[in-house]
Parts: sequence; C-alpha cells; structure tokens
Amino acid sequence: MSDERWTVLREQTLVDRQPWLRLIEQDVQLPDGRVVEGYLKADAPPYTSVFALTENGMVVTIEEYKHGPGRVVLKLPAGFIEPGESALEGAKRELLEESGYEASEWRLLGQFHDDGNRGMSLGYHYLAQGLRKVAEPDAGDLATVIPGLMTAAALRRALLAGQVGESATAVGMLLGLDALQNVT
Amino acid sequence: MSDERWTVLREQTLVDRQPWLRLIEQDVQLPDGRVVEGYLKADAPPYTSVFALTENGMVVTIEEYKHGPGRVVLKLPAGFIEPGESALEGAKRELLEESGYEASEWRLLGQFHDDGNRGMSLGYHYLAQGLRKVAEPDAGDLATVIPGLMTAAALRRALLAGQVGESATAVGMLLGLDALQNVT
Repeated sequence: MSDERWTVLREQTLVDRQPWLRLIEQDVQLPDGRVVEGYLKADAPPYTSVFALTENGMVVTIEEYKHGPGRVVLKLPAGFIEPGESALEGAKRELLEESGYEASEWRLLGQFHDDGNRGMSLGYHYLAQGLRKVAEPDAGDLATVIPGLMTAAALRRALLAGQVGESATAVGMLLGLDALQNVT
Repeated sequence: MSDERWTVLREQTLVDRQPWLRLIEQDVQLPDGRVVEGYLKADAPPYTSVFALTENGMVVTIEEYKHGPGRVVLKLPAGFIEPGESALEGAKRELLEESGYEASEWRLLGQFHDDGNRGMSLGYHYLAQGLRKVAEPDAGDLATVIPGLMTAAALRRALLAGQVGESATAVGMLLGLDALQNVT
C-alpha cells in the first residue's frame, strides 16, 4: 500500500491538562495534497487492563462508578501507567492494588488507541494467570472499587447484557474470553 | 449497591468544536462528600460499527489510514451517526457507503463509551447478515477507504497480530467473532 500518512503542517495546543489530557489542533496535508485545517488530536496517558484468571477458572472483576457512562459498571483491574513504569509493571501494580492478587504468568493480548481519529490513550490488554492472593485491595481511586470473581460464562453474559460501559473494558474482556476459547 | 453517582456542582466548556468535540471541565461531588475540581469530560458524536457477514462466511473489512494511531489499520465499516439518524440508520448508511452492501438482518451486539472517565463517543456495534451488493463503495472520507473481505479466522489472526489500531474496531470485531462462535 502507498504511503497514506498525513503530514502535520502546523500544531497548536488548545488545552494542556497534562498528565490527564492535552488537546491539540493540527493543520494536516493528506497524501492527495488537500489541506485540512483545525483537525483535533488529543493525548491522554496510556493504561493497562488485566484479564486475570484464577486456578479454578474465575475472572477477577471490578465494580466501579465511571463518570463517562455515568453509572456503576463492570470492569477489569485497570489503570493509567505511571511515569517510569513499563506497561507490564503498571499492569502488575493495578492488579495488586485493585484486587490484592499477584500473577506468575503474563501475556500481552493486544494494544489499541481509544480514539482512532484523535488518539487519546493507548491501552495495553494483558492476560494474567498463576494467581496468588497476597494482600487486601486498596485501589485509592476516586470511586469505590468493589472487586469480585466471576466465571468466564457469567462475565460474557454480563458484557452482552450491557453491564460494561467502556470500550477499553469490553476489549480486555473479549480478548481474554477469546484466549480462553482458543487455548493451544 | 448504594448510589455511587457523582453530583456535578459546576460545569464550564473549555473548547467547543461541535459537532466533533466539546471539552468540558466539571467540579464534582463524590458520594462521600469530597469535591473534585476541574474534572475533564468530553462529548463527541456517537458512531456505529458493522460486523457484516456474507452468505459464504466472509467479513466485510476496511483498510484506512487513521490519524490517531498514525498508520493504515484494519477496520470494519463504521462512522459517526448523522443528525436525525437512528443508530441503525447510521449503520446501514455506513455499510452501504464504505462497502456497497445492504443487509437484511441486523442485530445490536453492544454499546460502549470510548472513554470511561471522560465519556467521548458512544459506539453502537452491529452484526449484519443477509448481505447483498447493491453499489460501488463511495465513502467520502478524508483518507482512502479500501474495502475487502476476510474469513473470520483471518480477521482474528490479523487482530491478534496488531493490524487493528483502535479500541472501537477491536470491540466490533471481537463481538462479531463471539457471536459467530456462539450461534444458538
């Protein structure tokens, strides 16, 4: 395929609320020469999401109020990667903080931007196995974080029934369920 | 579960680029009484994404440059819902524009916000079956849109190999693959 990348001719920061969000306006030139003025891009910090499976086949879940959908939703342990952390280190920290589990086997299932046009956060989705409960959860989030355990079948039913509110959570759960169904 | 919703005490628009994006700052009160000042929210238009399956089991795909990931990625027919359109009407229009297909059977597989904290777009993910080619594609997008057909197995391999760049596309593909594997 030919080079379809856009060339950035001009860039201006509209709102700078780093580390949470930087909203940017760009003038871009398309491969056919057309110029688009004022294209919006946004940078937000990367995050990790963990599909953690216990020895007896239960998935570690979280119930938490999220202000985007504006309701309590079903989630996986997840959170922003902190400065100086690798994605894997962030995943291990979030799993421990939000659920109290450590895992001995980690596999990156995929990584995706939350907004295909503007960019936003890049999410890293992990499968964690070989779980061991080593602490009580202590998430330190703004909202109350309620950890739980569900079978894969119950998790899938809850997802399809609308209990998940966020694309990132849906990706993490569906990648995990896919990995379980396609074990080699 | 108790009411975990946050109360918005104050709201101010920081950037208004409707219909594409409105960035908002809120002071919110948490259920425990704490007040968080300057919480960022963002509104972006809703979109639809279509997992369209031909009679012989091929999935309609799109190759397109996306400025978020900054590369050519594998997608499904998808796009923003236009004013006055229902989600289903938008899905039918996008499928026709980007691939030239009409479908006789439609099923909503799920709907998710692209940013759990800030909101952003709400995406509606459809399964479309009973396909009939009625036109040549004419997407009218900024980037060149290349439609194609892939088997479900090839689509899954491409997704796991990193050819998909966006969470929304990953959700739509994984929901479609899940529906195929769990036909009742």
